[in-house]
Amino acid sequence: MEQSNKITIGILGGGQLGKMLFEAGSPLNNRYRFLESSPDCPASLVCNNQVVGGLMDADKIETLAEGCDVISYEIEHVNIDALRKLEENNKSVFPKSNVLKTIQDKGLQKQFYRNHNIPTLDFILSTSANLQTSVERWPDTKFVLKHRKGGYDGKGVQVITKSQYAELLSSKDDSINNDSGFVIEKFVPEVTEVAVIVGVAQDGTITSYDPCEMVFDPKSNLMDYLIAPSSLSQEINNRCKEIATKVVRSFDSPGLFAVELFIDDNDDVFVNEIAPRPHNSGHHTIESCITSQYEQLNRILLNQPLGDTRLMCPAATCNIVGPPDVLGEYIIDNLDEILSISGVYIHMYGKASTSPYRKLGHFTILSETKEEVVNKMKQVKELLKIKST
Amino acid sequence: MEQSNKITIGILGGGQLGKMLFEAGSPLNNRYRFLESSPDCPASLVCNNQVVGGLMDADKIETLAEGCDVISYEIEHVNIDALRKLEENNKSVFPKSNVLKTIQDKGLQKQFYRNHNIPTLDFILSTSANLQTSVERWPDTKFVLKHRKGGYDGKGVQVITKSQYAELLSSKDDSINNDSGFVIEKFVPEVTEVAVIVGVAQDGTITSYDPCEMVFDPKSNLMDYLIAPSSLSQEINNRCKEIATKVVRSFDSPGLFAVELFIDDNDDVFVNEIAPRPHNSGHHTIESCITSQYEQLNRILLNQPLGDTRLMCPAATCNIVGPPDVLGEYIIDNLDEILSISGVYIHMYGKASTSPYRKLGHFTILSETKEEVVNKMKQVKELLKIKST
Repeated sequence: MEQSNKITIGILGGGQLGKMLFEAGSPLNNRYRFLESSPDCPASLVCNNQVVGGLMDADKIETLAEGCDVISYEIEHVNIDALRKLEENNKSVFPKSNVLKTIQDKGLQKQFYRNHNIPTLDFILSTSANLQTSVERWPDTKFVLKHRKGGYDGKGVQVITKSQYAELLSSKDDSINNDSGFVIEKFVPEVTEVAVIVGVAQDGTITSYDPCEMVFDPKSNLMDYLIAPSSLSQEINNRCKEIATKVVRSFDSPGLFAVELFIDDNDDVFVNEIAPRPHNSGHHTIESCITSQYEQLNRILLNQPLGDTRLMCPAATCNIVGPPDVLGEYIIDNLDEILSISGVYIHMYGKASTSPYRKLGHFTILSETKEEVVNKMKQVKELLKIKST
Repeated sequence: MEQSNKITIGILGGGQLGKMLFEAGSPLNNRYRFLESSPDCPASLVCNNQVVGGLMDADKIETLAEGCDVISYEIEHVNIDALRKLEENNKSVFPKSNVLKTIQDKGLQKQFYRNHNIPTLDFILSTSANLQTSVERWPDTKFVLKHRKGGYDGKGVQVITKSQYAELLSSKDDSINNDSGFVIEKFVPEVTEVAVIVGVAQDGTITSYDPCEMVFDPKSNLMDYLIAPSSLSQEINNRCKEIATKVVRSFDSPGLFAVELFIDDNDDVFVNEIAPRPHNSGHHTIESCITSQYEQLNRILLNQPLGDTRLMCPAATCNIVGPPDVLGEYIIDNLDEILSISGVYIHMYGKASTSPYRKLGHFTILSETKEEVVNKMKQVKELLKIKST
């Protein structure tokens, strides 16, 4: 084989992020092995070398690692103790297990930012038992209540008022009981949300991508799409990149990180949270940047130099999710009409069936101006429907 | 599965063109099956669904087709009668077998151009037995002598003078005996060579890419690299696209075609020859065009609308070939230095061993200006060495 090295990359998780990582490595014939419980997961469509097993299963993680030279993960919910054990046996795990330990727990994450002088919104930590007292003492009427652990894609996070909290308390709502405890965080209306992808090579070199902005639907207040470049000034963009680079440097570990940031009305920048892996906000880099976030992670894991992160043209990405009223096998309606629009790139994750709000894929739009990108985004969103077969 | 259709694409051949075709289809989870005699061919690295067999084996071609809805090929040297039989049984073969029949034979190709008023350099056809007489009657001292069939990558083509021919004759050189006969063609020095990729959809829609120019090394006179846009004026570029479109339309078949053209000192454009498949001169489209030549062929085979062919930035491609003095297992030397250069994309074909002049891969360079592309090309060519492991 023509590889410059015979490194096999081991990945915990076999979802769409794994699939896209392996696709990015195909031109150089990178070698992968991955751990995932479902044999027909997205990554299985592009890689045969699967260990079938759960991401909390220490024995399976060991089996994965036996065939690999370097280990990473495409999801946070994995067995950290098993990763630490690999590190003790001199196996490279990137990002390091102690970084993942901090990130898995939103309380530790917030404290890490505070300890490293990283700007983050005010917060206090609370146990389940103390929650009522903590809420009463919190100075504002409206606040953000987060489970420290186990949240995903917005689950375990709610914006509520003290009176809404009282209602949840009296109705014994599940969401205010959590073994891992809570973060109570300042609520700031009208923030701009961006994410900065940061790559750290094994030699410590760091590079970041331009911020990608989350655009919200003004009616539903749900995220509508992600767009780059952001609507922020060059100065604020640079500040976002600086802060993202600073926080990632504090982790002191190779890896690819997505740093979510809030920018308030005073142009103050705050770190919201970090994912230690490729991220939704970097999907557009596949088509729009000189080096995609997936190629960047491949380079990091193979101990190669980092690639150029420059954005080549405006780009936006939108998730393709299962509609609330469709279950089971599905097709994309109006696919031909969508493919007739110049600069639309559809990525499907190969999931056999849909369920309400399930992430089935995404599409990216490239165009010469942001205005054109936004117009095409509206057009494709109108056309693209998931329907039953 | 989320495909809008459940079409399986069958491909005769499992080389690098197949590999890149399958890579282009991965984001939409396209289904492929391919026929190739070697189980560890390039395409096998990205597709499990292989029929092991030769491309002249009618039974194997039938086996391939049984599992497929539409058939194409990534190499010309296949059993045409077997393809015609598939067509008689209402299987779609694109490009159609009669097109391949014309293209496989350089004599029929040249006659086709003449019959369809396509500009092509003057020629006569000759059998092996008549070759001496034909050469004597040819008006110019210097001419191009081509085998009608079986040539590949420049083999079976020579530029010679009448006296050189006489030497070959007296030494009974193999190259002047060929069962399929010969084309004697006008030799024009100092031509510019470009190629235009043309896509024809199943509904007859046609689209073409901007011409890509072959740049020759002034010392060795061998092709050095391919670059787009070409050095020709916009007017000549457009004429090249028009002529390429006209000749492909004359074939009256869906498919992807690479039309090689000569432009002489008077700015006259001539069709040299045509490949009915993805082509070296379109490798750069993977990174530089809105729709790559591979994605375009996928769309054609899946009966989807054609994609936008626009070039987004200057790009050049160079083959990575085995050096004359290296045999067997190999690595790329200086890979890290090469990957440190912004906008360099390496594609390796996964061939297990090298031999002199074997095509092992290619690299593409993107940059904002053609000058930068050319400078980086020199840099990478200096650095990139294939060496034994």
